[in-house]
Order: sequence, then structure tokens, then C-alpha cells
Amino acid sequence: MNSIDYKKELDRHKKLLSITLILNSSLEPQVVHEKTIEGITEIVNAEVGSLLLFDEEKKELFFDVALGEKGELIKQIRLKLGEGIAGYVALERKSLIVNDVSKDPRFFKKADEKSGFVTKSILCSPLIYKNKLLGVIQAINKKNNDIFDYKDLELFESFANIVSIAIENANLYTRLKETFYQTAFALAEAVEKRDPYTGGHIKRVTEYCLAVAEELNLDKEKKENLELAAILHDIGKIGIDDYILRKPSPLTKEEFEIMKRHTSIGVEILNKVKHLSNIVEGAFSHHEKFDGTGYPKGLKEEEIPLIGRIIAVCDTFDAMTSNRPYRKGLDDNVAISEIKKQAGYQLDPLVVSAFISAYERGKIISQNRRQDNED
Amino acid sequence: MNSIDYKKELDRHKKLLSITLILNSSLEPQVVHEKTIEGITEIVNAEVGSLLLFDEEKKELFFDVALGEKGELIKQIRLKLGEGIAGYVALERKSLIVNDVSKDPRFFKKADEKSGFVTKSILCSPLIYKNKLLGVIQAINKKNNDIFDYKDLELFESFANIVSIAIENANLYTRLKETFYQTAFALAEAVEKRDPYTGGHIKRVTEYCLAVAEELNLDKEKKENLELAAILHDIGKIGIDDYILRKPSPLTKEEFEIMKRHTSIGVEILNKVKHLSNIVEGAFSHHEKFDGTGYPKGLKEEEIPLIGRIIAVCDTFDAMTSNRPYRKGLDDNVAISEIKKQAGYQLDPLVVSAFISAYERGKIISQNRRQDNED
Repeated sequence: MNSIDYKKELDRHKKLLSITLILNSSLEPQVVHEKTIEGITEIVNAEVGSLLLFDEEKKELFFDVALGEKGELIKQIRLKLGEGIAGYVALERKSLIVNDVSKDPRFFKKADEKSGFVTKSILCSPLIYKNKLLGVIQAINKKNNDIFDYKDLELFESFANIVSIAIENANLYTRLKETFYQTAFALAEAVEKRDPYTGGHIKRVTEYCLAVAEELNLDKEKKENLELAAILHDIGKIGIDDYILRKPSPLTKEEFEIMKRHTSIGVEILNKVKHLSNIVEGAFSHHEKFDGTGYPKGLKEEEIPLIGRIIAVCDTFDAMTSNRPYRKGLDDNVAISEIKKQAGYQLDPLVVSAFISAYERGKIISQNRRQDNED
Repeated sequence: MNSIDYKKELDRHKKLLSITLILNSSLEPQVVHEKTIEGITEIVNAEVGSLLLFDEEKKELFFDVALGEKGELIKQIRLKLGEGIAGYVALERKSLIVNDVSKDPRFFKKADEKSGFVTKSILCSPLIYKNKLLGVIQAINKKNNDIFDYKDLELFESFANIVSIAIENANLYTRLKETFYQTAFALAEAVEKRDPYTGGHIKRVTEYCLAVAEELNLDKEKKENLELAAILHDIGKIGIDDYILRKPSPLTKEEFEIMKRHTSIGVEILNKVKHLSNIVEGAFSHHEKFDGTGYPKGLKEEEIPLIGRIIAVCDTFDAMTSNRPYRKGLDDNVAISEIKKQAGYQLDPLVVSAFISAYERGKIISQNRRQDNED
């Protein structure tokens, strides 16, 4: 190679390196997928990039991200191993250049038909991590009507390795988080089931909280913290005796005082977890009231963590609209107007208005209105 | 640059890329740290590489990995921000080349004194992720008595970016796993506390299981699964009523039948968690017996998952050596000889021998012999 060729190669490797940094800077699968597609076009100077992921159960490839108006149509396409150029590459686990797809019988025309796009050339590499097929990446139509060459192929294979690792890391992280949250939920639900009359409460409150978070435009981290806090908000009930939890009639004043301890018991339990301090305070302030009349600490207004103020509204609504052994749940309308009345008194007015707006957009389905009633 | 220079640069970038792949292939901090140190010497052709991590609480840098016999001595060194060349780089957040450390007053001599190593030149870059200082990397002594130049510096900074991301990802993953396990443990302990006489059981059984896993040389993934299974093995007791759990005298036959349901309740609870199938069966087979006389299914020998066979031995030992309201715990010797007797009958002989060997190496400390008695 002469120095011009070397310089070109060096520049391409520098670009590859900078895209690598971007890819690895996220552990969110969706972000990694999007950055991958952006990277494809840059790395080998292609018109379009696409990413197909491998569905291990069905042994099929599918387009995960498809931008533009035709995106949804393309998402429906599923390729079996061996089907189309992508399926061929996935099956053979070898990269492939096809510089004139019209002459290649393997070419799968449906994607073009659905998207209205005209594929001329394809460079395709498999995504493999520790011998496991994750999918394939495709660069489509080299720019300037040029053709893909072996240098493109070499670089694209390096990129495929980088993508595979980034996807696997994001998957591992996401799976771990899901497992964590699902386990917390399973245990919280089991605690809830000690009282046969509160079935489905945690699930509904968690859903309501996430709907409110959406209205309030909370960022991903805050949403996740809120979700975990909502799941765990009643976990302190582990420490309340059966005879109080299951009492089929209203509690006496003394019993209610004991029941109230569930918030401080919750704090005690979860304070042992090093990195949960950001949710503990919130989760267990859900019986604090905006006007300072709540428990356990009698905090008011912004002294109450936002998480606690959100759970309070959702918890109140669910308590009002759910059935109890000694009374039927209130109608949604009655509960909603009660919540509105409490805005600025027991409940945070900002959270209440976010709740109402989520309710009006059909995001809050009370126990009354559920088909899949958990009780 | 001429073509020889470009080729050299290209080769260095290719090397950087291949090290990047290795670094990102692990989400274990320790592995990432080791691969970083290996990478340093390769990337800039240095005699030795070192990694100092930043302790955010104490605002100090410390050597995380230090190989060789002097490693432990070096590990004790802690540098304040601004102290030594590494501390300077961390404070200023700028890379630095010092090609003759003997003439630089910032040079911190203690590391050389402790290691007996002679530092001549240093190339040092800060590790920064999203504006957060993670540490610094140092390349020490360019090989062949050469000096570090600006090309080394440029490449080293790229490497520092890559390392920062890899370290942060591994930290995030590890922190999430810790939080998950600690949360599971906190909830399991809270369930345990409903019965005031079983305090510390889960903690001890989990420790015993990990000691046995060590003896059996289980790999990291199996150990982690076993740990989670041990933490959760009695979680089904959530579904057992107070009056049975807390009964201060031995259970009647009927009560015992109810108590036995805790294993199937545990299965029910955790079967809702998608990715826990590998631990569920194990965790809740801890009352199966090697000879097929256990519950809930009456499995025998290898039909019982290894996790269940390990928990069974540890659970049995702890049950025997712990105090109950109606009897004092047995002496270790008596319990050990009882366990030996059950090898091949109720208990798996291989697990029993691993347990005995862990016990003999002082890794199993019964409740009797604990100072920090949790009861």
C-alpha cells in the first residue's frame, strides 16, 4: 500500500474506534441497536444500515430497528436461517458481499417491496458472541454507486465483533435488571397475598406510578427507581402479624398504630441494601401527607421525596377503588373527585394533576374496570 | 507522515482495537482491571503498566491490581489528589509524559521503594467517564530506553477512554448484581424474622453453601446461582401462617404437613421470574433426600439438582447446631458425625465430604461458635 492508502485505512480505523466508544457507552439494548445502524453507514460508506436480531426460540431473524414511515412494515419481516442474504450469512456464519443483488437468487425481495427502497449491493456480517448467533448487520448500497471490497469486508467484520460484544453486554445488564425487578415483585406479591383482600394492589400501584412518571416526564433512571419503590412500598408488611393483616373488619386504633409500623419496618429491611438509599426514603414515605399530617415522620410538601408523593396518590386511588371485605370499592368518578379535593391538602397538587391527566388518557385502569381482575 | 509511519500507526490502532474487544468482553471489574494493565504495556511498548482507582469517599487513588510478590506492599499505597504524578494527573485531569522522573519533583518515590522497581519514564492518563474521575493508568519505562512521545500520548488517551467505559460498565453490572442479591437477602431475612427462633439461619446457610462450592470448585456462574438459591431457599415461608411458624414447641403431624408446603410455595412464587428457572428447582429441592425419602417430590440422587443437595447438607447442619425454644443446639462434633452417617442415605456423599473438608479448613462456623451471634 502507498501512504495514501495507509492514511485512508488509518482514518477508517480511527472512525471505527470512535464508534466503538459510542456503542459501549450504553447498556441499553435499544440505544446500542440504534448506534449500530448509524455506525454501519459511517464505517463502510453505505446508504443504509440494518440490524437483524436472532430470535433463538423461533430460530428466525427479525429487524429490530427500522426507521422512517415504512419501519413498521419492515419490522414484520422474519427470515428463517438460510432465507435471503441475511439468513444465508446467519446460517453459514460467514460475511458476504453481493455487489449486484438482482443477479443473486438468495436475495429476499420483500424488504424492498415493503419499504419501496431499491437495494443494489449488500455487505453482510454475522453477529456472534462466544459461538452464539446474535443476528446480522447489513450495509446496503455503497455510496456513489461504488462497490463493496475486501477492505470494507475486513473492517465490517471488526465492527461486527464490536457490535456483538456491545449487544451482549446490554442484554446481560437488561436481563439482570429484569430478573431483579421480577424477583422483588414476586416477593412483594407473596407478602401481599398474606392478606387475601389486597390482591393485585402492588401490581396496580406500580402501573399507576409508571403512568404518572410518564406524565411528569421523569428520566429513565428516576422511572426505574420509582418502579422499584412502588414494588417494595408495602414490603414492611412482612413484619405485621397475621391477625392484623387479615382482619376482615376495620382496625381498632391500637391495631392501626401497629399497622402503621409497616413503613418503618420497610425502611429497616431495605436500609441494609447499600445502593438502594435513593429509593428507600421514597418508598416508605408513601403515607406522609402533603400538609404534614401523615406518618411515619410527619414530613410535608417537598420534604417528602417525589417518589413518596407519587406513590401516595396512586396508593390512595387504588385503596379507594378496590373492594374490601367490609365495603365495595368506590366508583372511579367518586375516587377521582376525592383525589382532586385532596390536591394541596393530603396530596401533592402537581402529582394529582399528572395522575388525572394519565387517568383521562386511559392509562389508569382501576380494579373496578379490570377484566383480568386479580382478586 | 510517510507510508512506514502510517503503517506503524495503523498497526497500533489495530492493536488498540483488539485490546478493546478483550476489555469489553467482560463485565467483571477484576478481569477488566487485569486486561487493562496487560493492555498498557502492549499499546505503548512499556515495561510495566499500572492502574490506580479513585476512592470517591476518601478522595484517594489506590493500586487495585499489583502483580508479583511486591503486590501487597504496593496495594497499601494511597495517593491524595495532587500527590505524585498519578495524583497530579487525576487532579488536573490531563495526561502527562515525564521522561526522566528523577528530575520531576512531583514523582512519588514510595512505590519504587516498596517494589524495588526503578521507574525512569512515565506516561499517565486520567480515566474519566461522563465527567466522573475513575482513576488513572500509567505506562512505566518505555522499552529499549526509548522515550514516550506525543503519538504514544494520543494513543494512550484513546486507550484511557476505552478503559473508562469498560470499567464503568463492569461497575454498573456488579453494583446491580450486588443490589439484587442484597435486596433478596434483606427480604429473605425479614421473612425469617417472623419466626424469632430462626435468626441468622439464612446468612449461615448461604455462607456454608459458598464454602462448599469453593471445595467443589464450582465456576463463578454456578456459585452465584447457588448463592441466590441459598438466600431464597426458605422464602416460601412467607405463605405459612404465624401460628405454625412461631410455635414454641415441636409441630404436630398436621402442622408439619402444612410447614412442608413452604417448598412448593417457594416454587410458585419464583416461577414468575423469567430467568430464575436455573435456581428455582434447586432452591426448593433442599428437603429432598438422597435416598428418595424427602419432599416435595421424593426425588433421589442426581435427580435432585446439585444446588438442592448442597443446601440440604448446609441446612441440616445449621438446623442441628442452632438453638430452638425447646432444645439447645447440638455440639459441632455430634452434628458432623450425624452428617457423616447420613452420607449416601439422606445426604449426597460427595457434598458431605466437601462440607467436612470445608469444616476442617475452618470455613464453616456454626451458630454455637459465633461471637456475632445473630439471635
